[in-house]
Amino acid sequence: MTLDQALTALRECRDRIDEVDVRLLALLNERARVVEQIGHIKHGQALPVYEPKREDQVFANIQQNNAGPLSQEAARRIFERVIDEMRRLQKERMQD
Amino acid sequence: MTLDQALTALRECRDRIDEVDVRLLALLNERARVVEQIGHIKHGQALPVYEPKREDQVFANIQQNNAGPLSQEAARRIFERVIDEMRRLQKERMQD
Repeated sequence: MTLDQALTALRECRDRIDEVDVRLLALLNERARVVEQIGHIKHGQALPVYEPKREDQVFANIQQNNAGPLSQEAARRIFERVIDEMRRLQKERMQD
Repeated sequence: MTLDQALTALRECRDRIDEVDVRLLALLNERARVVEQIGHIKHGQALPVYEPKREDQVFANIQQNNAGPLSQEAARRIFERVIDEMRRLQKERMQD
């Protein structure tokens, strides 16, 4: 592969990443909307917001469906951040 | 809404989240595969692995495409973790 070919291939890879990121972001926002709905339902019934058992289910679902190349640990760390941010959003909404 | 209706609605929301998470995970692994390809191309040409300018582009793409409800800060924090994990994967692969 010449340097020119390599740079073209890099550019193509980056375009693909940008596309994947837009789809990731749309899905993350879709997830956030469902989490908001859950917050609304729980608030209406005075149900506890934090349910550690449910969190275990979320991680179990990730582990069961992870085909790689991300390791189980990497996938878990990413979803820990996702869950953190969703929880933060729920808290902000409840203060409105 | 009765408690029974609320619990049913919660269950449906959780099923939707589990589905979204499987799609998120598939996209994250798709992104990881492209990152591996980039690592391979860079390695072949002895190009620098870390390019802060490219990282800025990734974040700019996120900010431009974020329709919410996630805040720009929340979206950024999630993608920071994603990028961290992808970089870690690239490093592990290079040691093989």
